[in-house]
Amino acid sequence: MFGRIALVGIGLIGSSLARVVRREKLADHIAISTRSASTLRRAEELGLGDSYHTDAAEAVEGADLVIVSVPVGASGTVAQAIAGALKPGAIVTDVGSTKRSVIDQMAPHVPHGVHFIPGHPIAGTEYSGPDSGFAALFEDRWCILTPLPDTDAAALDKLKAFWRACGSDLDEMDPDHHDRVLAVVSHLPQLISYNIVGTASDLETVTESEVIKYSASGFRDFTRLAASDPTMWRDVCLHNKEAILEMLARFSEDLASMQRAIRWADGDKLFDLFTRTRHVRKSIIEAGQDVEVPNFGRQSAKRGESQT
Amino acid sequence: MFGRIALVGIGLIGSSLARVVRREKLADHIAISTRSASTLRRAEELGLGDSYHTDAAEAVEGADLVIVSVPVGASGTVAQAIAGALKPGAIVTDVGSTKRSVIDQMAPHVPHGVHFIPGHPIAGTEYSGPDSGFAALFEDRWCILTPLPDTDAAALDKLKAFWRACGSDLDEMDPDHHDRVLAVVSHLPQLISYNIVGTASDLETVTESEVIKYSASGFRDFTRLAASDPTMWRDVCLHNKEAILEMLARFSEDLASMQRAIRWADGDKLFDLFTRTRHVRKSIIEAGQDVEVPNFGRQSAKRGESQT
Ligand SMILES: NC(=O)c1ccc[n+]([C@@H]2O[C@H](COP(=O)([O-])OP(=O)(O)OC[C@H]3O[C@@H](n4cnc5c(N)ncnc54)[C@H](OP(=O)(O)O)[C@@H]3O)[C@@H](O)[C@H]2O)c1
Ligand SMILES: NC(=O)c1ccc[n+]([C@@H]2O[C@H](COP(=O)([O-])OP(=O)(O)OC[C@H]3O[C@@H](n4cnc5c(N)ncnc54)[C@H](OP(=O)(O)O)[C@@H]3O)[C@@H](O)[C@H]2O)c1
Repeated sequence: MFGRIALVGIGLIGSSLARVVRREKLADHIAISTRSASTLRRAEELGLGDSYHTDAAEAVEGADLVIVSVPVGASGTVAQAIAGALKPGAIVTDVGSTKRSVIDQMAPHVPHGVHFIPGHPIAGTEYSGPDSGFAALFEDRWCILTPLPDTDAAALDKLKAFWRACGSDLDEMDPDHHDRVLAVVSHLPQLISYNIVGTASDLETVTESEVIKYSASGFRDFTRLAASDPTMWRDVCLHNKEAILEMLARFSEDLASMQRAIRWADGDKLFDLFTRTRHVRKSIIEAGQDVEVPNFGRQSAKRGESQT
Repeated sequence: MFGRIALVGIGLIGSSLARVVRREKLADHIAISTRSASTLRRAEELGLGDSYHTDAAEAVEGADLVIVSVPVGASGTVAQAIAGALKPGAIVTDVGSTKRSVIDQMAPHVPHGVHFIPGHPIAGTEYSGPDSGFAALFEDRWCILTPLPDTDAAALDKLKAFWRACGSDLDEMDPDHHDRVLAVVSHLPQLISYNIVGTASDLETVTESEVIKYSASGFRDFTRLAASDPTMWRDVCLHNKEAILEMLARFSEDLASMQRAIRWADGDKLFDLFTRTRHVRKSIIEAGQDVEVPNFGRQSAKRGESQT
């Protein structure tokens, strides 16, 4: 599909891309670059690419597709570093969790004749680094592209075909709308998770070991997200500030209203609040974005399996 | 282990008990009672017991162990209904998610000579009703008993042995402490989940179908809890009000502080907040309360399995 693909950043996302590109034979040559010598060495030990570079400019030289997979706050620096080495006609894309800021940081550096098409695969785990990637990460997951107004149609088609070959379904969106959608489906849940785990760790009357011991009763569902990479999430907060603050404000408002219903023992209101959210789960399962199995915290207890 | 066990309430918890009692042969006779004729019929179709009663008093007659598994708000009514039929020396226990209120509701009705020992298995799913139960529900999960000061030691031992035979580990706790611990590990996560799903459903700029479509990026982790039974949770809120309000207040305070760090782009503070919560996940996995596999939303993507 491509001659040379350059992967700048080889953590969870970059290394998953390397693995699927290899498996699906999407490039003749995979050039890998990352900031630190130690991560690069690990990528090499894992045999993720065909060539390894500490200098990103060297990696992108002659590449037909360049995928930048670094924390969003580093996008500008990376764009600046590779700009001079980009081949005319190359496609440059990224995988960052925010899009407006990435565009503002990268677009000014991309030379005329190179196709910059920002993107975001809606797929991830709470792990990071080159060891955590796997080829199936993008399968049956959405990949959102946020093309700029003057994007070349042929280049866009080519990038879409690439993501389809990785197993993804494609969507296009305006960057600002992307940032608002992701603020609610991803950034808000993430911040709430960090926050609840923080709150639980700070109590005087309940110990952390009690929290851990009895976490199967709900708490543990939040700890997966709260184990995610702090650098990535710091950058997301700093680069999608307005949308995140809007969602947090709405969430707090709703929470205050629920709090009030509890204080005044308004059972009917609580019942209503707890009823209107149930169908969302069903729709998510129907949309193939989760499985019906309860109790994922325990592999033996598959629904139905142990019914006697 | 027991002659006759009476199960009052045959939903998720009651029917899981019925199944494990049968599998482990913990009773000669399982008497089942529930409020509605339709649920009772379903329990009978599933063959969960040996006798079926719409009258709870009839079910508990001659029983050596009575387990009440109904929403906590119904505990008093049930206790009143069965009080007169309880056999001297019988053990009466419950499985309710709050303990102080259940004690206040039930204890006054329990006749002298009957051993009332409140309990709470820390095991559940988001499903309810007799079809949703399974025998393995309690395996490797904690069961907390909150015995009263004058509890008979032999009766307590017997109840502990029962739960152990169901696969549980046993803990004893003061009822008020139980309610505070559960407020943080269970009730707060539950309310936060209901709230975030509610907030996401109410946006004008992001549609519900977008929320569902892109839910794999974090949101879906919350929807499992938000699919839980509204009656059960309304009752929990009404019956553990003080502890829940305390936890909600702390959570909101912490959230406001995070919000402020985002507004003022305080990257260092955000990084710190996001770092201190990571170890909790690790401890939960080590404690056997969750598994390490990422991406539970997809059965194919086991960690390592698809690494190439
Ligand atoms: N994790 C997810 O669930 C997920 C999902 C969708 C999109 N994303 C987006 O994907 C991107 C990468 O995330 P990831 O999970 O793959 O991260 P990761 O596993 O932590 O890997 C990050 C990569 O970026 C490099 N890097 C870190 N800081 C850098 C800097 N200041 N300058 C240049 N390179 C830097 C790292 O290099 P060294 O190790 O050599 O320092 C590493 O190669 C982020 O923009 C994130 O928003 C993540
Ligand atoms: N679900 C969990 O994850 C979980 C975990 C630990 C503890 N608990 C506790 O276990 C108890 C039962 O929960 P569950 O999940 O088994 O509930 P469930 O599946 O909804 O079943 C509830 C049972 O209680 C009966 N019931 C409902 N309202 C009643 C009323 N007003 N008076 C008398 N009976 C009534 C129902 O009878 P009909 O169907 O005949 O109306 C049914 O038999 C609750 O106290 C809950 O706090 C639940």
